[in-house]
Amino acid sequence: MEFSFVEWLRRRVPGRDDLVVGLGDDAGVLRWPADTDCAVTVDVLMDQVDFDLRSIDPRRAGRKALAVNLSDLAAMAARPTAAVIGLVLPIRGGERLGHALYEGMLPLAEQFDVAVMGGDVNSWDGPLVISVTLLGTAPLAGVWKRSGAKPGDWIVVTGQFGGSILGHHLDFEPRVREALALAARYPVRVARVAQASSCGYVLRQEAIPISPAAHQLTNRENDSATALEHALQDGEDFELALALAPEDAERLLTDRPLRVQLTHIGEFTGDGKFWLEHRDGTREALTPAGFEHAFD
Amino acid sequence: MEFSFVEWLRRRVPGRDDLVVGLGDDAGVLRWPADTDCAVTVDVLMDQVDFDLRSIDPRRAGRKALAVNLSDLAAMAARPTAAVIGLVLPIRGGERLGHALYEGMLPLAEQFDVAVMGGDVNSWDGPLVISVTLLGTAPLAGVWKRSGAKPGDWIVVTGQFGGSILGHHLDFEPRVREALALAARYPVRVARVAQASSCGYVLRQEAIPISPAAHQLTNRENDSATALEHALQDGEDFELALALAPEDAERLLTDRPLRVQLTHIGEFTGDGKFWLEHRDGTREALTPAGFEHAFD
Repeated sequence: MEFSFVEWLRRRVPGRDDLVVGLGDDAGVLRWPADTDCAVTVDVLMDQVDFDLRSIDPRRAGRKALAVNLSDLAAMAARPTAAVIGLVLPIRGGERLGHALYEGMLPLAEQFDVAVMGGDVNSWDGPLVISVTLLGTAPLAGVWKRSGAKPGDWIVVTGQFGGSILGHHLDFEPRVREALALAARYPVRVARVAQASSCGYVLRQEAIPISPAAHQLTNRENDSATALEHALQDGEDFELALALAPEDAERLLTDRPLRVQLTHIGEFTGDGKFWLEHRDGTREALTPAGFEHAFD
Repeated sequence: MEFSFVEWLRRRVPGRDDLVVGLGDDAGVLRWPADTDCAVTVDVLMDQVDFDLRSIDPRRAGRKALAVNLSDLAAMAARPTAAVIGLVLPIRGGERLGHALYEGMLPLAEQFDVAVMGGDVNSWDGPLVISVTLLGTAPLAGVWKRSGAKPGDWIVVTGQFGGSILGHHLDFEPRVREALALAARYPVRVARVAQASSCGYVLRQEAIPISPAAHQLTNRENDSATALEHALQDGEDFELALALAPEDAERLLTDRPLRVQLTHIGEFTGDGKFWLEHRDGTREALTPAGFEHAFD
């Protein structure tokens, strides 16, 4: 492919001139800060799977491709620094689409002080595929781990859940700053509850923060799920779900250090089972898959 | 997608336990060596564009996806350390295919001491897409630059050119060790001749190392190109093309520090034009596109 804009795409590096010391054809060189580990995550998004270009502005697709990676680093409390982009554009309209993707991605990159390094641009007779690899710095002391929750740990979540298909799955704010602020002040043991789920947990039904979008879905004809079910099962909320020792969780909930809502929704149990506890004390078995999705 | 092997894929990290200090769901943490920059490159490969799964063993496709990235870092004389993989698998046969890709990739990763960090696995009703992002350490003194050749610099290449479609484009040896050995002993100014081509160059026809595969193609019926044309235009040779000051190039060609063939094929001119010089001294204009491909 010889799109005229390939060079333009490859060289877009908003900010972070301190970091990007060299930029090649499909490669770049970053000055790595001393005394930090390198956190790295990748997500590949496809048209008509992760979004539908027939019905959305492609800038929102570009934004999402970066945002999901920002969210992944937030879940580790790593600080994002540079994104490397791989594009597979449809031949028809690929150039215009490529521009639009970047127009959606770059403001988010600037917002989070991330260098966007072009990378690889291809085209084919197929749907759009975007691969974003995001690098970030992590303290040598370690990032939030994927396991380590203990029975009795409280589960605290940011934001609200459910109905992301109505727009949130594209336009969510990655919880990067929130994660860094929390990591600096509270001993968070797990940032992804689903991955610590061998421990088992109980969620209190009335505590689950249900988004207006979940209610909106429920009120639609042909929608047989309750708002709570949407909150537990829809996924793509991109909120933080934290496990903390009860005393640390209490301190966090007293301090309220974030602008975003923080909610104590349940506890780890240690019995390896997943429960939803109703207001009257009765318990219903949860399928962990649904809840897992809600946090990934 | 809930392929049973996703966790397996994500956790395959041959070697480099020193480097990989954490491995999350679709993210990992690397201990970054002090006093090195971080070189990063990405390539996205698609079925029926970069290979054809209808006619090749998928292990060769997996190998190629890593090998092209190794080749990109070799062109900068950076030392590869860790690869992050994003897969989009066709729904039908995706699990078997995913395994085969890794079976092709992992031996190459071990050969070059690269940690393979699973990353992101997806599936769809479409052809295979593989995204590989490769990180490597680079000396603070800088990697080989994409520009900087001077008029009079000699162009020295490794290996032979042409006919890669017969198999070399899948099974080539990335010139990683060669690049590191050269960088340690010779002041190479440019490792990708195409990218320094604003300088202009002249290649001597009789010096171009033509691969047996290029001759093989020429001897086929319906093939109207000469072996030389194949060498100049086919591309996907994945050899190093270096620019050095004449005295350094002479020292290199006298030392012969590599097992692989090294050939002085021409010089940078400074006139911004691209020439092929025939044995009798006559010159023919080259289309730089063809030659560029031969080195990218």
